[in-house]
Amino acid sequence: MDTVKITLDESRIPKAWYNIAADLPVPLAPVIHPGTKQPIGPNDLAPLFPMELILQEVSTQREVPIPEPVRDVYRLWRPTPLYRARRLERALDTPARIYYKYEGVSPAGSHKPNTAVAQAFYNKQAGVRRLTTETGAGQWGSALALACRFFDLECTVYMVKVSYDQKPYRKVMMQTWGAEVIPSPSDRTRAGRDILERNPESPGSLGIAISEAVEDAATHDDTKYSLGSVLNHVLMHQTVIGQEAKEQMEMAGDYPDVVIGCIGGGSNLAGLTFPFLRDKFKGNQVRIVAVEPEACPTLTRGEYLYDFGDTAATTPLLKMYTLGHTFVPPAIHAGGLRYHGDAPLVCLLYHHKFIEAVAYAQRPVFDAAVQFARTEGILPAPEAAHAVRKAVDEALQCKREGRARTILFNLSGHGHFDLRAYEEYLTGRLEDYAYPRQQIQEAMRELTAIQP
Amino acid sequence: MDTVKITLDESRIPKAWYNIAADLPVPLAPVIHPGTKQPIGPNDLAPLFPMELILQEVSTQREVPIPEPVRDVYRLWRPTPLYRARRLERALDTPARIYYKYEGVSPAGSHKPNTAVAQAFYNKQAGVRRLTTETGAGQWGSALALACRFFDLECTVYMVKVSYDQKPYRKVMMQTWGAEVIPSPSDRTRAGRDILERNPESPGSLGIAISEAVEDAATHDDTKYSLGSVLNHVLMHQTVIGQEAKEQMEMAGDYPDVVIGCIGGGSNLAGLTFPFLRDKFKGNQVRIVAVEPEACPTLTRGEYLYDFGDTAATTPLLKMYTLGHTFVPPAIHAGGLRYHGDAPLVCLLYHHKFIEAVAYAQRPVFDAAVQFARTEGILPAPEAAHAVRKAVDEALQCKREGRARTILFNLSGHGHFDLRAYEEYLTGRLEDYAYPRQQIQEAMRELTAIQP
Repeated sequence: MDTVKITLDESRIPKAWYNIAADLPVPLAPVIHPGTKQPIGPNDLAPLFPMELILQEVSTQREVPIPEPVRDVYRLWRPTPLYRARRLERALDTPARIYYKYEGVSPAGSHKPNTAVAQAFYNKQAGVRRLTTETGAGQWGSALALACRFFDLECTVYMVKVSYDQKPYRKVMMQTWGAEVIPSPSDRTRAGRDILERNPESPGSLGIAISEAVEDAATHDDTKYSLGSVLNHVLMHQTVIGQEAKEQMEMAGDYPDVVIGCIGGGSNLAGLTFPFLRDKFKGNQVRIVAVEPEACPTLTRGEYLYDFGDTAATTPLLKMYTLGHTFVPPAIHAGGLRYHGDAPLVCLLYHHKFIEAVAYAQRPVFDAAVQFARTEGILPAPEAAHAVRKAVDEALQCKREGRARTILFNLSGHGHFDLRAYEEYLTGRLEDYAYPRQQIQEAMRELTAIQP
Repeated sequence: MDTVKITLDESRIPKAWYNIAADLPVPLAPVIHPGTKQPIGPNDLAPLFPMELILQEVSTQREVPIPEPVRDVYRLWRPTPLYRARRLERALDTPARIYYKYEGVSPAGSHKPNTAVAQAFYNKQAGVRRLTTETGAGQWGSALALACRFFDLECTVYMVKVSYDQKPYRKVMMQTWGAEVIPSPSDRTRAGRDILERNPESPGSLGIAISEAVEDAATHDDTKYSLGSVLNHVLMHQTVIGQEAKEQMEMAGDYPDVVIGCIGGGSNLAGLTFPFLRDKFKGNQVRIVAVEPEACPTLTRGEYLYDFGDTAATTPLLKMYTLGHTFVPPAIHAGGLRYHGDAPLVCLLYHHKFIEAVAYAQRPVFDAAVQFARTEGILPAPEAAHAVRKAVDEALQCKREGRARTILFNLSGHGHFDLRAYEEYLTGRLEDYAYPRQQIQEAMRELTAIQP
C-alpha cells in the first residue's frame, strides 16, 4: 500500500484559531508610528481594518472562536488531506517518514483563502461594502476575490503591472470571481499618479501596489483594506492547518521531529507550525524550519530591526528581520516569497531560536519539485517547493545517519499557474539567482535613520 | 449552512467496475474490420492493447474487480466529493436540489486518470515498457503521463501541433511528469511523414495524432497504445464515479430525477450515469442527459452508422452516431468535446432512448460556468461547463413549474488551464459557433461507401 492519505471528518475542522500571542516566551515588540515613534493603538488602524480584526491583532486570548459562517465556507475544501509521501520516501531510499499537509485543494489553489474568508466575513459584519488589496503574481488576490463572493463584497485588487501584463491567468481568475483588477501603478490613487508622473512606464512593485490599496481604502468610507500575510491576525487564521495536521499525525500514530514551511511573509509557515510550537513551548523537542529563497534571504541574512512593511514607507514600523524596505528581490518564480521582511511573530521566535531557517537557490528547489511531482503526482507551487527541498534534504540526512526521523511539511499550494517556471527548468533556462549581497547592503543602510 | 459536501471514507472506493454490457437491453453491434467487413476478434487488437484490456472490452461480466494496486493509486484523490450546490440554487431561486460530483481533485485535474491508471497497470503487468497516445489540448495526455509514473512506464504523447505551440502549459505538465511530448504531425511515423510531405506547415489534428500513436505502438514490440475514451473498457473504468455518487446521494437521503454529463467521446458521461442506468433498466424513471456543443452535435444531429474512429480512417469501424470522420469541428474551447463520433455504448443507449441529448452554443455555456464559479467557487473546465449549463436550465425549469426535482451532474474537471477561454468570455470576444451544417453534410456523404 503506497498511498497513505489521512482524512478528517468535516466535524473536525477546528472550532477556534490558536493565538500564539497567549504563549509567547518573550513579548512581541510594539508596532511603532513612523512619525511619533510611539506605539500605535487600535484606533490608528481603524481606517483600514474592521475593529474585530484589530482586536484579534492585539488579542492574547489563546483560543479565538471561528464564526460558524467562516467554518461553513471552510467546509468547501477543509479539512485538507495529510499524506504520507511513501513514493517519495522510496525514491530517496530513506528511512525517514515524510508527511505533507496539502493546502492546494482550495478553489484558489493555496492556503490563502483560510484568512481571506475570515477577513471577508468580519468586514461584511462591520458593514463594509468593498475590500481593497494588492497582489503580485495573484495568489493572494485570487483568494480574496473568491472570499468576497461568499460574503457579497466588492473586491478591488491592485496587481503589479508587470504581472498583470505578463501573467494574465491569475488576473482572469480574479475577474471570473467578479473582482476588479487594476494594473498598478494606476491613476486611481495619488500614490499611483505620483509614480506615473515620474515614470509613465513603471512596471510597478508590490510596495507601490500596497500603497495604492491602502490609500484607496483610507479615502473611501465604505471600503477597508485586506492583507494576506505578516500581521498577527492573518497568521492566526492559518492555524487551522496545523491544528488539523496535529490530529492527523496522531491518527497516523506519529509525531514530527521536524516541521517545515516556506516563508515569504510567514502565513503558511505559521499556519502549520504554531500549533506545534505550542508543544515546543512546553518542552517538546520538535524542530521548526522556515525555508526562504537565497534571492530574498530575510531570516538568514537580514537584521532584526524596525522597518516599514511596504517599499513606499507608508505603513507603521514593524520589528522584524528585514533586508531593507527598498530592496527589490530578483525575479524568482516563487513570487510569494519575494518580501523584504517577515511576520513579526515569526521573527521573534526565530530570534529566540524556536525556529530555524535555511535558504535555497532556485534550481535545487525545482529539482525537488520535479522529483516530488514524479513520485507523489502533485505539482508544487514554486513557493511550496522550497519546503519540499528542505524535506528531501532532511530525509537524505536521515539516510546518511541511518535514522528514521519523522518529517512534516506544508505543501501550501499547487503549481497550475506556474508552468512557465517548470518549462524554464525542464529546458535548462532556469536562473539560480545568487545572494544579492550588494543590493541588500544598500537597502540596509537606510534603516539606521528610522529606528525608534 | 450553505456548504453541503458529502465525503466517503476511502474504504468506500468501489472494489469493482460496473460493466454495463451485462445489462444492455439490446446487444451492441460488432466492431467491423474495414477491409473484410467482418467482425474483428481479440487477436486483431493484440498489437495495440494488452490482452487483459481486450478481454475487458468484450466482457459481459457485470462486476470486474479493480486490482488493488489501481485502488491504491485511486486513493490519492478518491473518493471524490459530492457537493450540493446550495449557493447556486439560491442564486437561481429554484426549488430544485442541485448536486455535483467533482472529479477535478485528481492531480491531472479531471476524471481521466480513473482509466489512465487502470490502463497503465494492465500494460505494466503484461510486460509493456512504453505507452503511446494522442492528445489535443492535453487533458488526456497529462492523465496518462501521470499514470505512467505510478507504474514506471515510459510515455510518448503525440500532441496536436497547433496546441503544442499555442497551449504550452499542458505540454509542460506532461513533461514534468516525465512524458515525451511530440508535436504531431512528426517525422517519427510514416503517417506523420506523409502529412508533412504534402504540407510541411500542417497544424495537425486529433485524427493525425491518433494515426501516429497507433503506428508507433504497432511497430514497436515493447510498446502499446492507450485511448482515453470511446472504448467499452475505458467507459467501464470511469464507473467508479457513478458508484460513489450513488452511495453519496443515498447518504444525502436523495435520488436524482435527472443525471447530466457532457459528452465528447463519452467517458465522463458513462462514468457518472451507467450505474444509474443500471437502475433505469430495472424500471427506475431517472432521466439521463448527454450535453454536447452545437459546434459538434454528434448525438443531436449525427446519424447512427458505422464510421472510423479517426480522421485518417485507420481504425476498425464502430457503430455510432457520427458527423463523419472527416468533419473538423470549429475551434471551441471545450477541446475534449471536439470528436466526430461517440462511444458505441452511449450511442446504443441513446438510440434506444435510455439517454437524452441536448446541444448548446459556446456563450450560454460560459454564462453558466461563470455563474457557477461565482456561487460555488470552483472554475469549471469548458467541457464540464456544458453539464453546468444543462443543470442550470433544468433548475430554472423546476422554478417555472414550481417543482423540487433533484439534479445531479458531473463536474468532470477544473478550468485552471482554460483561463484564456474565460478571458475571451469576460471581454466579450468569445465566439458562439453556430451548427456547421454544410461541413457536416459533406463529411456525412463519405459514409455510405464504408457501411458493411
